[in-house]
Amino acid sequence: MANIVQPRTLSGFMELLPDEQIMFERVKAKLEQTFGSYGFFPLDTPVLEYSEILLAKAGGETEKQIYRFEKGDTDLTMRFDLTVPLAKYVAKNQGVLTFPFKRYQIGKSYRGERAQKGRFREFYQADIDIIGDGSLSIVNDAEIPSIIYNTFNALGVDDFTIRINNRKVLNGLFAKYELKADPAEVLRIIDKFDKIGFDNVKAELTELGVEEGVAAELLGLLTFKGTKAETLDKLKAMLSGDTSPEAKDAILRTGVEELEQVVKYIGDFGVPDKYFAIDLTIARGLDYYTGTVYETTITKHPEIGSVCSGGRYDNLAGFYTTKQLPGVGMSIGLTRLFYILNESKYLNDKLKSPADVLVIPMTEDMGKAVEISAALRRAGIRTQVYLEQKKFKAKIGYADKLGIPFCIFLGEDEIAANKVSLKNMIDGDQVTCDTEEAIRTIKGFIEPLNEEKPVSLG
Amino acid sequence: MANIVQPRTLSGFMELLPDEQIMFERVKAKLEQTFGSYGFFPLDTPVLEYSEILLAKAGGETEKQIYRFEKGDTDLTMRFDLTVPLAKYVAKNQGVLTFPFKRYQIGKSYRGERAQKGRFREFYQADIDIIGDGSLSIVNDAEIPSIIYNTFNALGVDDFTIRINNRKVLNGLFAKYELKADPAEVLRIIDKFDKIGFDNVKAELTELGVEEGVAAELLGLLTFKGTKAETLDKLKAMLSGDTSPEAKDAILRTGVEELEQVVKYIGDFGVPDKYFAIDLTIARGLDYYTGTVYETTITKHPEIGSVCSGGRYDNLAGFYTTKQLPGVGMSIGLTRLFYILNESKYLNDKLKSPADVLVIPMTEDMGKAVEISAALRRAGIRTQVYLEQKKFKAKIGYADKLGIPFCIFLGEDEIAANKVSLKNMIDGDQVTCDTEEAIRTIKGFIEPLNEEKPVSLG
Repeated sequence: MANIVQPRTLSGFMELLPDEQIMFERVKAKLEQTFGSYGFFPLDTPVLEYSEILLAKAGGETEKQIYRFEKGDTDLTMRFDLTVPLAKYVAKNQGVLTFPFKRYQIGKSYRGERAQKGRFREFYQADIDIIGDGSLSIVNDAEIPSIIYNTFNALGVDDFTIRINNRKVLNGLFAKYELKADPAEVLRIIDKFDKIGFDNVKAELTELGVEEGVAAELLGLLTFKGTKAETLDKLKAMLSGDTSPEAKDAILRTGVEELEQVVKYIGDFGVPDKYFAIDLTIARGLDYYTGTVYETTITKHPEIGSVCSGGRYDNLAGFYTTKQLPGVGMSIGLTRLFYILNESKYLNDKLKSPADVLVIPMTEDMGKAVEISAALRRAGIRTQVYLEQKKFKAKIGYADKLGIPFCIFLGEDEIAANKVSLKNMIDGDQVTCDTEEAIRTIKGFIEPLNEEKPVSLG
Repeated sequence: MANIVQPRTLSGFMELLPDEQIMFERVKAKLEQTFGSYGFFPLDTPVLEYSEILLAKAGGETEKQIYRFEKGDTDLTMRFDLTVPLAKYVAKNQGVLTFPFKRYQIGKSYRGERAQKGRFREFYQADIDIIGDGSLSIVNDAEIPSIIYNTFNALGVDDFTIRINNRKVLNGLFAKYELKADPAEVLRIIDKFDKIGFDNVKAELTELGVEEGVAAELLGLLTFKGTKAETLDKLKAMLSGDTSPEAKDAILRTGVEELEQVVKYIGDFGVPDKYFAIDLTIARGLDYYTGTVYETTITKHPEIGSVCSGGRYDNLAGFYTTKQLPGVGMSIGLTRLFYILNESKYLNDKLKSPADVLVIPMTEDMGKAVEISAALRRAGIRTQVYLEQKKFKAKIGYADKLGIPFCIFLGEDEIAANKVSLKNMIDGDQVTCDTEEAIRTIKGFIEPLNEEKPVSLG
């Protein structure tokens, strides 16, 4: 070929090597399996949508980052999250969906962010959401994090904290302290707490016009370190005795009640105490949440930031329908999470081989090798047959490079005796046995392996 | 909200309802499971690539149909198949891949074709390919269709024919008949045989300059109806005695030998005779194949055309590397296949529920319901808990609408007696029993169900 085009992949687009991809698929399968075990529907919406749909709400940063173009006279945008397509989907199909509508979606989204290590322009998100029709019980706000707890547990990510807050608590406190500043701005600043710390947040708040004493008191409260019960008690102590809906602190009261209920139900849902916490500094300021909000951090790697966030929204699809559709959901940044697990060597390498056994025919006739391979596959063993005419060393080398734990050799002697030679590639042991025994041996090895989790934080 | 944007999905972009999506996922899972059982690596490449990469070869129709745009100063294209990205991937990673490289990829591709029923602009393809390093045994040309046979079988699509030909046979025949016309043009016309029939193909060939007698004789041969052995005999009878590489009919001889070997090995791989046939009219004229070519038709629905096609190519990645990378593969048009199965009511509706049981708490305290749900999930039962405060009828109606086969009621009496009330939603039977017995009953129902295939051609 005269002109060779340099084979390269776009910057910010994850393209894994085969053994990494196997691990990615194992992680993804655990998410699908866990979400599915809760009876959530899978969903798959187009990557491309009309720009007017995806950008009905968006503005500012989102507009700048999107992949938007025209084809013919159609203005198209590649989706930048899975929530806006969900809103469109639910609005479009509201007449035929059964509510509460529980769905998960694991799919790619696109944002043309500035390229940097660990930031991706094409990335998988794994979302779970529950959408109600007019109303949705607060208990759902507890079920969602309980599913995330079980998902992370199934993965082997067993050292994390789901941090919970409620936007009504924050808004209620702003009202109580009679902040004059724009609440959205205050939320945005508080949201930076993890990144810039107490003093900087306080400085930014005072810059925004919040009185220094008030800023200090508010931040003191938001950063109070105590048990969940102690934090709730501290909040409850701030409430007036007025429990009427017209009370000046009605929003704060509702927020505290919701937060207390969510915390109680998360426990009821079987999440151990140490995996969730109240964190009043969680604001999710840039999002559309109206009640419960969540972030999830890997306890020993706070620098990664949140690997799973979400919350409660009063009205999912207000841009597409007049019907009130409240919902609650969380989203795992799967590509970013996988990148970190891979970089940190937290993936379980024992699971990265594509096959459990390599059958190596030593005769011209493949008939017997193929017959045995079919029996192995029927027994649930992932089986490759080596079909190339190469030297013996090359055949073994192939199994070795792929980390295939067993080889079966089939020569004339084995075929005549109706046996196979089974080699354990890890300890080098080789035995001659019948096919059934080979199947038992291989299954004895892979069954405990397949029970192992894809991640180990070490 | 003042301005409602009409929620709509782009024409030609499949967006399924939840119960259809469940069936799609079941079909997709069968493909992944079967491909994986052969030890193929999964692969996932970006949807977006540099235009110069994707369009290194393309021209004509492809160029017109693609989604191509600029972002900043980067010229981007959405992939239009999974083969070109594979070529780039293998060329890019040739130094670290182990050959033969066996991979499958199930992913979305994009072509802006004229919108019409059953044609999709965003569509899943499910590809399997084996790529060699310099050389690749002809036995691989038989393994690929044997995997497709097992895949369709696992799906429940049990009435199909894999039709096999070899481009060298066609090119050898063109040489033998001393056709002066452009072989690519002749292939393109022959490829239309299924659509336009004998007489029209003959007319187009003569129009192209092929002598009428020759066209008739060639077409007579290509459409010969006989067993595989009879067709091979007929071809062999046309060969000269000269077996040297310099023989005038060397290409025809090689083609016939390859075809014979592939047919023999497909049998060795356990594919029953009725599921594959030689069809000398298969040309895959627009593609880059150089030897074996395949098409697969649903026997009772020939009008659908090929649902799985592919073949052997001598040089996968010539645009990206000087290294010779021969390969063989097949591709299932998954979105189109699913569309047809769904339209024809060939999907197994018994598998479309998202959950196996709905747990309905009848008390304020969810603790017991959640505890039992966790036990059900641990037993492999997909379990939803109904969390809304609705009337009893609404709760039952929810299970009914989703086709959930069992409900468990947990009232104060049940909780006090450490029992559950289990209702079979299909026959209406209701019993009070302990959790273990409920698990046994539900598993007794779902285990045979989960063995059922997602498709039934009826």
